[in-house]
Amino acid sequence: MSTAGQPLVIALDAMGGDQAPDMVIAGIDLLRGRHPDVRFLLFGDEPTLTGLLAKYPRVADAVTVRHAASVVLGEDKPSTALRQRRDSSMRLAIEAVHKGDAAGVVSAGNTGALMAMAKVVLRTMAGIDRPAICSKLVSQRGPYVMLDLGANIECSAENLVQFAVMGEVFARLLLGIERPSVGILNVGVEELKGNERVQAAAARLRDGTLPIDFRGFVEGTEMMAGAVDVVVTDGFTGNVALKVLEGTVKMYSQFLRQAFASSWLNRVGYLFVRGAIGALRRKFDPRLYNGGMLVGLNGIVVKSHGGTDALGFSTAVEFAIGLAAQGYNRQVMEELSRAFPGPPAKPATAAGA
Amino acid sequence: MSTAGQPLVIALDAMGGDQAPDMVIAGIDLLRGRHPDVRFLLFGDEPTLTGLLAKYPRVADAVTVRHAASVVLGEDKPSTALRQRRDSSMRLAIEAVHKGDAAGVVSAGNTGALMAMAKVVLRTMAGIDRPAICSKLVSQRGPYVMLDLGANIECSAENLVQFAVMGEVFARLLLGIERPSVGILNVGVEELKGNERVQAAAARLRDGTLPIDFRGFVEGTEMMAGAVDVVVTDGFTGNVALKVLEGTVKMYSQFLRQAFASSWLNRVGYLFVRGAIGALRRKFDPRLYNGGMLVGLNGIVVKSHGGTDALGFSTAVEFAIGLAAQGYNRQVMEELSRAFPGPPAKPATAAGA
Repeated sequence: MSTAGQPLVIALDAMGGDQAPDMVIAGIDLLRGRHPDVRFLLFGDEPTLTGLLAKYPRVADAVTVRHAASVVLGEDKPSTALRQRRDSSMRLAIEAVHKGDAAGVVSAGNTGALMAMAKVVLRTMAGIDRPAICSKLVSQRGPYVMLDLGANIECSAENLVQFAVMGEVFARLLLGIERPSVGILNVGVEELKGNERVQAAAARLRDGTLPIDFRGFVEGTEMMAGAVDVVVTDGFTGNVALKVLEGTVKMYSQFLRQAFASSWLNRVGYLFVRGAIGALRRKFDPRLYNGGMLVGLNGIVVKSHGGTDALGFSTAVEFAIGLAAQGYNRQVMEELSRAFPGPPAKPATAAGA
Repeated sequence: MSTAGQPLVIALDAMGGDQAPDMVIAGIDLLRGRHPDVRFLLFGDEPTLTGLLAKYPRVADAVTVRHAASVVLGEDKPSTALRQRRDSSMRLAIEAVHKGDAAGVVSAGNTGALMAMAKVVLRTMAGIDRPAICSKLVSQRGPYVMLDLGANIECSAENLVQFAVMGEVFARLLLGIERPSVGILNVGVEELKGNERVQAAAARLRDGTLPIDFRGFVEGTEMMAGAVDVVVTDGFTGNVALKVLEGTVKMYSQFLRQAFASSWLNRVGYLFVRGAIGALRRKFDPRLYNGGMLVGLNGIVVKSHGGTDALGFSTAVEFAIGLAAQGYNRQVMEELSRAFPGPPAKPATAAGA
């Protein structure tokens, strides 16, 4: 769908997320100015969506509504979602990517269900055993990428090596870094630290057969200082680390707000610094970092935070647009066939662009 | 040593830590006013220590120097330290606790070596398979405790249950909370989230046989919001979480400093708010939270951060004084014999107070 002359199409699960479908439509509205040529396939309850679109004429021009009879619920187990939500907005949106009707899909719905459906419908790339969730985050030095942020509770050393390859391509394309540095998150930087899994993965990345600038282990403090461009970890540790990071930022911001409100002197001072403090708050606004890609699938699948609003959702959609436009998956496949030579990788389809 | 009328004695590894032995002596000096009755056994190179003490007459009054012929190095593996550092300041300081010459020991040296030596010399309590590192941290709501912060890279469900029992007593004594709430760190709060290890531990804590206010799983964001008083996790996840937390605070503080320096307007504003901002910085000063207890041993062993200064070291020593004075280990043993009835626990020795 992304060939020259044809508009880029993104499929959206219009019913996923706490504030859906309103925030989905309002999110597209926020993007229209920056991406006038992108078209959207909206999957969800048609009467509801048509009613909402009447309020957003700019959005109505850019979307096609496709009716979905059901919705994946937040409490659905992945197995339930697979069996009972075949006609859901999430499932049909993923299938649009598989069929080549869309170059990528974005959903703010149930993560486990999205992962399970995306695996069944799109399948993992040749050379990849499991997809991982990969996002752009911010360190003291600037942006970096981290994976896996929660797709795989248990990971093997080989999974971590595959994540490193996918994360490296991600940083190259999304951050524009020519030769991104890669590190594995660990409890110390010495070679003998950590469990067998991280040690075996590090040994494989150190042996020089993969074209990756591997810097060894990084600790959480170094990660936040910006020691490497790509941080590789298992989904349990990655998810905990991400949520501790978010919780710490929230706590600090809260204490800062209290400090500025604690006396008339501080309130006066705040009048002078509020511009700079506002900029600082925006730097850490999770809505501006919303969107994790499920890397390793034959298709671009972006998970938005379930609790986000229109601004956050628009960030996730813009993230999917960028990934599709830059041909992330095609580049990962090329990298993988170089990294793990074996049976030739399947040719990239339109859906895998 | 802590019986009425006798002074409390703390053993100190005077040679461990980047700024040792100076920061050890200067650290005691900072404490003298608040704890005039506590006495210290200083283990290290006698000529060096005697020379230093000449500069601190207030400290000289409160300490006895015991010569140690060697030092555990930062790069020593635990096995090397056990075999080759039998006459080290760290080993002799731990032995002072075992012999009953001191009520607790503090070291800023090599964590792995400290753990190994403490296990060999003091042994784990009846009912405890592995010690854990336990510290007081700060959330949006106030202080809480977390363990394991890095002693055990791999933990079983039973280890996590034991950590919960020890952490609960810790919060009761150190935070003064009558009935502390306990949670297990996980990637979601739903019962089915996470790996088998956390699920089995949660099932055991939920079954009601342990007298613990167990609240189930907590995520990193809730932990930082102060959802529970005791956060239980394995040493790999705990260590990563702690360092991400520290790294995020450092990053935020750094950005805040830059914001205040970014224009004359902000510099003027800073003059108004600097008192409140200073208080905020102190709230997060890692030196004021320095010190992790190796819980589960027959003796009080406190690990100080290796890179800390005199103020940080004094916090760790004060932490050990509090633990010894309140009889933390005796209370844990009572709790354990109730939680895991079996062969009667060994009677608490002076060293286990």
